Amino acid sequence: MSRFLPAWLAGYRRDHLPGDLSAGLIVTVMLVPQSLAYAMLAGLPPQMGLYASVLPIIAYAIFGTSMTLAVGPVAVASLMTASALTPLAVPGSADYVGLAMQLALMSGGMLFAFGLFRLGFLAHFLSHPVISGFISGAAVLIAIGQIRHLLGVRIEADGVIATVVALIAALPSTNPVTVAIGLSSVTLLVLARSRLPGWLVAAGLARARAELLGKLAPMAVVVLATLAVGLLELDKIAKVAVVGHVPAGLPSLPSADQMLPGWESLTQLLIPALLISLVGFVESVSVAQSFALKRRQRIDADRELLGLGAANAASALSGGFPVTGGLARSVVNFSAGANTPLAGVVSAALMAVVLMLFTSWFRAMPHAVLAATILVAVTSLIDLKTLSETWHYDRADALSLAATALGVIILGVEHGIVLGVALSLAVIVWRGSRPHIAVLGRLPGSEHFRNIERHTVETLPGWLLLRIDESLLFANAMQVRAQIDSMLAADPAIKRIVISCAGVNQIDSTGLETLSTLESDLARQNIQLLLAEVKGPVMDRLATTGFGQTMQGRVYLSLHDAVTCAQ
Amino acid sequence: MSRFLPAWLAGYRRDHLPGDLSAGLIVTVMLVPQSLAYAMLAGLPPQMGLYASVLPIIAYAIFGTSMTLAVGPVAVASLMTASALTPLAVPGSADYVGLAMQLALMSGGMLFAFGLFRLGFLAHFLSHPVISGFISGAAVLIAIGQIRHLLGVRIEADGVIATVVALIAALPSTNPVTVAIGLSSVTLLVLARSRLPGWLVAAGLARARAELLGKLAPMAVVVLATLAVGLLELDKIAKVAVVGHVPAGLPSLPSADQMLPGWESLTQLLIPALLISLVGFVESVSVAQSFALKRRQRIDADRELLGLGAANAASALSGGFPVTGGLARSVVNFSAGANTPLAGVVSAALMAVVLMLFTSWFRAMPHAVLAATILVAVTSLIDLKTLSETWHYDRADALSLAATALGVIILGVEHGIVLGVALSLAVIVWRGSRPHIAVLGRLPGSEHFRNIERHTVETLPGWLLLRIDESLLFANAMQVRAQIDSMLAADPAIKRIVISCAGVNQIDSTGLETLSTLESDLARQNIQLLLAEVKGPVMDRLATTGFGQTMQGRVYLSLHDAVTCAQ
Repeated sequence: MSRFLPAWLAGYRRDHLPGDLSAGLIVTVMLVPQSLAYAMLAGLPPQMGLYASVLPIIAYAIFGTSMTLAVGPVAVASLMTASALTPLAVPGSADYVGLAMQLALMSGGMLFAFGLFRLGFLAHFLSHPVISGFISGAAVLIAIGQIRHLLGVRIEADGVIATVVALIAALPSTNPVTVAIGLSSVTLLVLARSRLPGWLVAAGLARARAELLGKLAPMAVVVLATLAVGLLELDKIAKVAVVGHVPAGLPSLPSADQMLPGWESLTQLLIPALLISLVGFVESVSVAQSFALKRRQRIDADRELLGLGAANAASALSGGFPVTGGLARSVVNFSAGANTPLAGVVSAALMAVVLMLFTSWFRAMPHAVLAATILVAVTSLIDLKTLSETWHYDRADALSLAATALGVIILGVEHGIVLGVALSLAVIVWRGSRPHIAVLGRLPGSEHFRNIERHTVETLPGWLLLRIDESLLFANAMQVRAQIDSMLAADPAIKRIVISCAGVNQIDSTGLETLSTLESDLARQNIQLLLAEVKGPVMDRLATTGFGQTMQGRVYLSLHDAVTCAQ
Repeated sequence: MSRFLPAWLAGYRRDHLPGDLSAGLIVTVMLVPQSLAYAMLAGLPPQMGLYASVLPIIAYAIFGTSMTLAVGPVAVASLMTASALTPLAVPGSADYVGLAMQLALMSGGMLFAFGLFRLGFLAHFLSHPVISGFISGAAVLIAIGQIRHLLGVRIEADGVIATVVALIAALPSTNPVTVAIGLSSVTLLVLARSRLPGWLVAAGLARARAELLGKLAPMAVVVLATLAVGLLELDKIAKVAVVGHVPAGLPSLPSADQMLPGWESLTQLLIPALLISLVGFVESVSVAQSFALKRRQRIDADRELLGLGAANAASALSGGFPVTGGLARSVVNFSAGANTPLAGVVSAALMAVVLMLFTSWFRAMPHAVLAATILVAVTSLIDLKTLSETWHYDRADALSLAATALGVIILGVEHGIVLGVALSLAVIVWRGSRPHIAVLGRLPGSEHFRNIERHTVETLPGWLLLRIDESLLFANAMQVRAQIDSMLAADPAIKRIVISCAGVNQIDSTGLETLSTLESDLARQNIQLLLAEVKGPVMDRLATTGFGQTMQGRVYLSLHDAVTCAQ
């Protein structure tokens, strides 16, 4: 029996139950307004956010490996959904909803396939700077996109500049009551985030509990705003935009026609689905890993792919849209004491109850307060600290980061991330194309050789000892040769060159040809070329070549050997 | 006075004169049919090939640095010209001719600008396999394109497959006299190349002279075929396609309108001009360098850019098309005894004489014999030997080579080379993403540590000594971490890990974060992380970071120091 259960369930300990129950309840309190808000952000009817918060969580609980990751609708994936679908259909329309399900299904299928074929390593091609830049850029885009709801204006605009222009043009037609609700919500939310925990601690609460309450305060703000609109009938009197009718009950299974993408949407959604999958996977795994480390648990990246794939397929099946593991809710889940994915199952069950019994409560919920929760949530994703740290450590990485962020804001999410990935790969090539070559001397009284510019070392007349600090690849082979040539030109007394290959991790065929030409050119000038510290895998391949034959007896284990034997 | 002359001219020695004169004369003999043939290949009137062989050579003689490089029309650049211009205008039309001049001007401008800004290193991004694949693919394309002239059929077809199909369809309408001329020319040319030098040596000639005569035999074949057609009036009787009327006299300067590209052609020609420039530059420099080495002369790559840029600008000015340094003529120039660019100047002067006095001699020259010379010349460019050598040494490089060649043949020259460059850059990233990590032990009785799988070494209980053979970059940081984690899991007794960074040439911000997380995760498990052999440039940057601070006192100059000090 237990073989068919997930490991956490088969070995479930009763003392885990209280933590899982309370975490499940608390996450639900946070999840209700968030799932409505992220459905709005994705351009979808509100109930789809709720649907995406039931089955996906259960699917992840079965296939995933993290004990504390909270899966469901998140801001960045919702933005990517909107950005992928808006060119293809009218937001909110039946076509649009169908495409959202197809996108979730494709994303789920890809993640599952990546998991089965152990392709999780693909995500490593998203560097930290690119991910950081992407998330910051997406957060700016999301924030700008929400301002219309805070002002209560309707605008139709493509791209960030057009949106800002349209917003300014629409300023005279703002709805004052909506603005009042929006701004007071933002103010309360900011206070709840920045001050409330401090006040609660001052009032005698424990720090952890105070911070947890601070995280739940948004729900109170949403309830307050909804009550105000509902009791004063502000939606009718002052035309405040509200969520309106949300159909009660669990979602019915979509037909195969609705859910399976046709050839046209398959090709249109392929790249967006791939990007949503990879970005979602990278985010989830890094969140899951950071929590796992705190409790000395382990995450299996390929199993995580299966878990997220199953969650997205379940989302598509139940009429939802792409989901992934979210940072904010996972933090709450963890600090509220979640021990196992049972916490998620509890929260999925509670969401199902909400869907069956309480959807009428959302009728008077104003868009402005949902926009305010999104706005305050995403501003914390704008990560200038990483930009500044990266700038100090590595300019090229900082430029990748900034270019990705600006690319996302100006060109859109998809082009932005593709630009970022292309740039970060270009940086790898550029790094390899500027090899550092050190001239070495012997540390007195030792067998070690070090850079003559950094250490007090002994040099040997007539010898040139070099250390090439890079693999010899086509992108740098010519520079290496040019540097060696100019060192030779500077000292005509040189009769022997020893190249230490401790830093030469690979030699491609252009590098091989460069070395081979160098050897024959030097031989013609009666200069002997020796090699030292050639790594095993490099030597294995060199040995099979004509150059390897020529160098026989001139390859030494260490510089010390080269210098002593050859003398 | 001498300050305004090129160095070779200011310091000209009289004993260089005989060699330069004879080389100039011999190269001209080769240049006449080649320049007509390459103009045909480029889809241009024959006289443009002659024009491109006068001023460009003189311009190169002033700005270039090679003593023996023969500049002028070459096969690959002519093919690239045709491939760039055919989609834009009808070959041979006035528009087409104008575009060819603009292409030469843009290519010249780019080369000159690259030289001024010392951007010659850009060419290093064309790896040897990509260049070899490109040239082989281009040679196949050229050869297939010439078959129509050998058969005397007219076909209109885009792409290699369509061309082959059209050729087969046109077989019934071949011109038998043209086929006879074409096939006998090919036979004679192949014999001249493969057997003639041997026969001449057997007849008592010196080997070098015999080979030089073998290289000049094509001119004799062309003269023979032209005489046959002219005397028997085969062009009229048997409709053999001939060069026809070639206007006499030097080219008049084109108007600025003709030569300066408009905005539209500027954007259309930008990429072709860039590719022609880079490919031409790489080819020229490698030819120039191989000859310079034989005579212990030096080539300055940035000065070469200026020389080739000036040559192309001169070609545009005199109504020609893109030119570059060619291998075949440079070989003849070198072996005929050229000592300085004066040989080129001599040949340019002779070409001017040909243009003024002898263009009527080309009237009856059949296209079939020109096609035969091109065909035989380019088949020697198909380089299967490099493919097989590369395949044995480096599969990834061999695949780049093959993909570039197939890409050129199937997708066309521009897409083919872009594919090749993209692939070769992807290979660099892929190489870096699969780091080799060796576990080390001490070579008995020494201070050196080597891979335990390759050497008989002593290990220390409780210690894990690692050498990471790759820079720590985002593309491999996760794999490195995963490998270290599984080594730790395999031996719970490990209390100290020393990472030798002799192969870690760079650490990007993702690599830094991975190291930093590793350190804190290990510290939590009471395992100490030490570093050894961190290179100067890497250490300089690490020192400024939080991780660098944490590691203070735990970074050792050598593994030996780490092991002895920490014990």
